[in-house]
Amino acid sequence: MTQKINVCMIGAGRVGKLHSGTLKRYLPDGEVVALVDTQPEILNQTGDEFGIEARFTSLEEGLDKADFDAVIITTPTFTHKELAVMAAEAGKHVFLEKPMAMDLEECDAIIQACEQNGALLQIGFMRRFDPDFSLAFERIQAGEIGEPMLVKSLTHGPGLPPPWARDLSRSNGNLAEVNSHDLDATRWLMDSNPARIYLEVANFKGEERGVDTENYYDNMIANLKFESGGLGSISGVCPCDYGYDARMEIIGKKGIMIIGSLENNALTVGVDRDTGLVTPIFRRWPDRFEMAYIKEIEHFIQSIQRDTQPKVSGEDGRWAVAGVLAGTKSFLEERPVKLSEVM
Amino acid sequence: MTQKINVCMIGAGRVGKLHSGTLKRYLPDGEVVALVDTQPEILNQTGDEFGIEARFTSLEEGLDKADFDAVIITTPTFTHKELAVMAAEAGKHVFLEKPMAMDLEECDAIIQACEQNGALLQIGFMRRFDPDFSLAFERIQAGEIGEPMLVKSLTHGPGLPPPWARDLSRSNGNLAEVNSHDLDATRWLMDSNPARIYLEVANFKGEERGVDTENYYDNMIANLKFESGGLGSISGVCPCDYGYDARMEIIGKKGIMIIGSLENNALTVGVDRDTGLVTPIFRRWPDRFEMAYIKEIEHFIQSIQRDTQPKVSGEDGRWAVAGVLAGTKSFLEERPVKLSEVM
Amino acid sequence: MTQKINVCMIGAGRVGKLHSGTLKRYLPDGEVVALVDTQPEILNQTGDEFGIEARFTSLEEGLDKADFDAVIITTPTFTHKELAVMAAEAGKHVFLEKPMAMDLEECDAIIQACEQNGALLQIGFMRRFDPDFSLAFERIQAGEIGEPMLVKSLTHGPGLPPPWARDLSRSNGNLAEVNSHDLDATRWLMDSNPARIYLEVANFKGEERGVDTENYYDNMIANLKFESGGLGSISGVCPCDYGYDARMEIIGKKGIMIIGSLENNALTVGVDRDTGLVTPIFRRWPDRFEMAYIKEIEHFIQSIQRDTQPKVSGEDGRWAVAGVLAGTKSFLEERPVKLSEVM
Amino acid sequence: MTQKINVCMIGAGRVGKLHSGTLKRYLPDGEVVALVDTQPEILNQTGDEFGIEARFTSLEEGLDKADFDAVIITTPTFTHKELAVMAAEAGKHVFLEKPMAMDLEECDAIIQACEQNGALLQIGFMRRFDPDFSLAFERIQAGEIGEPMLVKSLTHGPGLPPPWARDLSRSNGNLAEVNSHDLDATRWLMDSNPARIYLEVANFKGEERGVDTENYYDNMIANLKFESGGLGSISGVCPCDYGYDARMEIIGKKGIMIIGSLENNALTVGVDRDTGLVTPIFRRWPDRFEMAYIKEIEHFIQSIQRDTQPKVSGEDGRWAVAGVLAGTKSFLEERPVKLSEVM
Repeated sequence: MTQKINVCMIGAGRVGKLHSGTLKRYLPDGEVVALVDTQPEILNQTGDEFGIEARFTSLEEGLDKADFDAVIITTPTFTHKELAVMAAEAGKHVFLEKPMAMDLEECDAIIQACEQNGALLQIGFMRRFDPDFSLAFERIQAGEIGEPMLVKSLTHGPGLPPPWARDLSRSNGNLAEVNSHDLDATRWLMDSNPARIYLEVANFKGEERGVDTENYYDNMIANLKFESGGLGSISGVCPCDYGYDARMEIIGKKGIMIIGSLENNALTVGVDRDTGLVTPIFRRWPDRFEMAYIKEIEHFIQSIQRDTQPKVSGEDGRWAVAGVLAGTKSFLEERPVKLSEVM
Repeated sequence: MTQKINVCMIGAGRVGKLHSGTLKRYLPDGEVVALVDTQPEILNQTGDEFGIEARFTSLEEGLDKADFDAVIITTPTFTHKELAVMAAEAGKHVFLEKPMAMDLEECDAIIQACEQNGALLQIGFMRRFDPDFSLAFERIQAGEIGEPMLVKSLTHGPGLPPPWARDLSRSNGNLAEVNSHDLDATRWLMDSNPARIYLEVANFKGEERGVDTENYYDNMIANLKFESGGLGSISGVCPCDYGYDARMEIIGKKGIMIIGSLENNALTVGVDRDTGLVTPIFRRWPDRFEMAYIKEIEHFIQSIQRDTQPKVSGEDGRWAVAGVLAGTKSFLEERPVKLSEVM
Repeated sequence: MTQKINVCMIGAGRVGKLHSGTLKRYLPDGEVVALVDTQPEILNQTGDEFGIEARFTSLEEGLDKADFDAVIITTPTFTHKELAVMAAEAGKHVFLEKPMAMDLEECDAIIQACEQNGALLQIGFMRRFDPDFSLAFERIQAGEIGEPMLVKSLTHGPGLPPPWARDLSRSNGNLAEVNSHDLDATRWLMDSNPARIYLEVANFKGEERGVDTENYYDNMIANLKFESGGLGSISGVCPCDYGYDARMEIIGKKGIMIIGSLENNALTVGVDRDTGLVTPIFRRWPDRFEMAYIKEIEHFIQSIQRDTQPKVSGEDGRWAVAGVLAGTKSFLEERPVKLSEVM
Repeated sequence: MTQKINVCMIGAGRVGKLHSGTLKRYLPDGEVVALVDTQPEILNQTGDEFGIEARFTSLEEGLDKADFDAVIITTPTFTHKELAVMAAEAGKHVFLEKPMAMDLEECDAIIQACEQNGALLQIGFMRRFDPDFSLAFERIQAGEIGEPMLVKSLTHGPGLPPPWARDLSRSNGNLAEVNSHDLDATRWLMDSNPARIYLEVANFKGEERGVDTENYYDNMIANLKFESGGLGSISGVCPCDYGYDARMEIIGKKGIMIIGSLENNALTVGVDRDTGLVTPIFRRWPDRFEMAYIKEIEHFIQSIQRDTQPKVSGEDGRWAVAGVLAGTKSFLEERPVKLSEVM
């Protein structure tokens, strides 16, 4: 009989609720037994919603009073390092949402704390657990399209990010909060580290939505050169308003692979020939990656049960942070930046 | 140098205009040199629109006064036999719109008149010239899906047919006017004649649109058994309002082939995440079969130039009429009807 | 805290394994605590695979020795009535796989036993829990396409059914085993009972696969007339070899809705321009309805927890059986058969 | 009656044959009456194939001996300026294939010669006449997706370009020969001139295909900033082997528009469930833009007949050349280059 894994959820906001719901509804082998949030109101709301009795306003208190095997950290980026290190040092396994941390020093501290305390570490790049993306990876690895030459990835999100996520000093901005996924996914599918990045950014909606953060941008295109010699392009638009959009294309020496779709359902409706045919779109990210969110937490639970290293490591999270730092430097200095400049 | 083919267009309504436009705009080897319509107003409108000087209110007059190689007959079904026979007896090649005629005696008279006077005869089943349908045919013939077992075909049209086309005594109704194409296309792709047909019909919109024709129906599903043992299904909805819809699926012993689409363009738009993604639909039949209409008339012109039998013969037209007669008998008598009962 | 529901799985074959896996992997609120199968070898294999300790070769023994709230019956059709009645009379809630039973007397016996013993009854039409189909239902109910006029449904399955499922005396053949889903789904989406059915069948692969069962068919098309006046068509092909195919189209007075797709992934690959673009197909039914299978069992568990009637009732199962009986009579007697003739 | 336009085709290779075929088969209002090619063998082959009697090995000879209204120039880029200027000075209207010329001085010379001699000038960006792209343009202009923020465009071609087209000194390489279309199309749809470009290139297949041209690349990604503040990305892969691929996406403040598809036909085939579903791909560029090639030449003919300026002007061609020059400078100097540096 497999061991049931007890989890302390850190952060009771929308991502904390998503993972709590996944565990409660779909994962018999894991259970959220404690909840941490600095804001008592949200803490109690989420605790009530998912029937979590043990509630704390700090991780320290949680570690002191509750018994659990692992933490899932869903708080803002600038809090990651402190929480992850504290949990690891208490011997708890760590599932850490992306982006991993604010800078590479923080990433290193987290990796080191986990290693030294025997804590497993998984970064929340759920795209790797999506049925479409993971099948693509398998087939590329099997050589189906030959050596990868060029990859494109996009993440366009519907809503204006929260203030901290628009602030370069607390989050590294959209490149980190929205397009970390693309930095990870392009490196994963190309099977090569990025070597150089060039970023163009634009701010089209900031003023009308009352954003006056310095260096704020809501559109960006990154141009990548990989160590393999391959090329890459990432686009980010947030808020894009039209829905949630996460797609990739990769061209190898033998052919092309197109991954993902905007269509939320295999349902097409025509009721007006002037309009045409209508198909539901993914409205929000949980719609697009419903199964991926289940499978990434299942993988974390199973990695603990089996004591195996999770698929998405601290090293993976660190590379995405490095890409963010180099990309930000690129648009600020209006020049291509080598990853080696920031690593 | 190839001979230019001079054509007399019979019928100056929407189909007459379609073919006149095709010849004028896209087919250097053919020219409409005479136009016939019993209604002077439409005759002059269409004549002016396409720059056709020679205009006649009867084919007899046209044959008497104008010089041409061929006729294209686009008038209502109940006029087909008389016009086609007259043209053939004058030695003119005949392109005859579907449905070929009202009954098999008329079909036979047309076929015989053409044969005896050396006139080529082509029936207007343009679907056979559509790039998607013709590629499907080639691949089925090449054995790609194995022996055909089951075929489905549909034609749903947006608008209420004209009064004569709703009247069984002047047109044989929607099964003839709308679904003749399916009767032909299923027989063509199955490479087998229909042996038995069963029809269910329904009338959902007649009353609200002021149609009180006896036995009128606007929805129908036909169930077919072919001589090969294969099965078929045809659906007809007219008026369907949502656009023009013509698609097929065929299953062979080895696999499936899905032919056609409702999407008019490779253009997808998302501007409202509650609505979803929108793609233009084929609004009318000329949108769907733009290239097929060019190619079928080009084929007729080239068949005359090369003196070869057109691909879609009087025999093909006759089988579709037989299917119409048996199908109509089926729904009136509420039983499956063998084609042999009407042939 | 919600009550955990203990289940006895009856039948340890492929459907029994599917539901056992769903409960074990994804549904914390239910647990398979007992397993019944008449064949000890399969009983032990499946018991081992899913860690079910309590194993019995008869339901009687299971009822006697184990403690559970509900049964899930996955055995062949001809065994359904006896098992379902026995479970109901022991006060167990019943999830019963489709087709519900061999005839209407058996359906009535099951319904009556459940009602008299306070047992909830759910029939395994998982299609109703599929995200695409259920969204379609909601939108049709909301009037999006207007009053339904015409529906088409298909189920084509890849493999040759087991001998009992090809034998009309033990299963009612493919119309029951494969196309029960379509009989239910068309009635559900049309919101009307079928009134008349006509069936054409064909046998293309039986001989080459060594099937000599009387009246065996591997292709069928059913033509339906509903009480509402609406029309329907169902096609069945099994074995179809090319994959698992379950799609629907429905046309209402205002428009069309196309439901489902053959594409298993949002992944398109092009590596050879002579071949073209390739997309994975649903290989087997569990691929197509992965989420629907989770949600139907979740619904059964929740119905018990909340003591509410499951969405797919015995009445629904009974209508599908009536459709099967009338359809079979139709092809044997080569005439349309009214449902009232068999009810 | 409209005047028939007589054309001298310059260049008897694959593009010259394409346009000659279009005129002969589909455009009654235009006729190729003279053919020019420096290579007698190709001159005669193509002349025979399309029945063009008047054949010349130089434009000078053609101008001297034949009578025509216009030229269509399909020869390599480095010959464009001399031929276009000579034709314009002889009062002939000029249809000039893309890329317009080698540099901006050449572009200016062509534009000036046409203006001073009353010659109409159209550049061969046929994408503007494609039904999908032109509908997209109309809808963007109508405000459907709001102000354009970000555009992506790709052209991936199957075959290795001819030696002159791989040589920066005679063609400016793939950015010019393959991706000129994207430089034009992004500027057209964004309704803004490019302001800055950054290019990454890679050479994956050169060595294995025996290409040793200096600075040769077969993969490239360009990152664009427009004068409007909008962003753009263009990818080029040639040879890509998998087919011909030309697609765009554009995101405006209100939504997204996805333009084009890889699918050549509305035909899907499934015969092997391990492979999945297969759809024909565009194998070569004439497949993808069949209708656009007809419509661009029809537009040129009609512009002459009506004496109106063609839609795709010398100015449009000149901007694409400027983008090519800046892009090439960018990858050679490994830095973003402003268009103002080359203009």
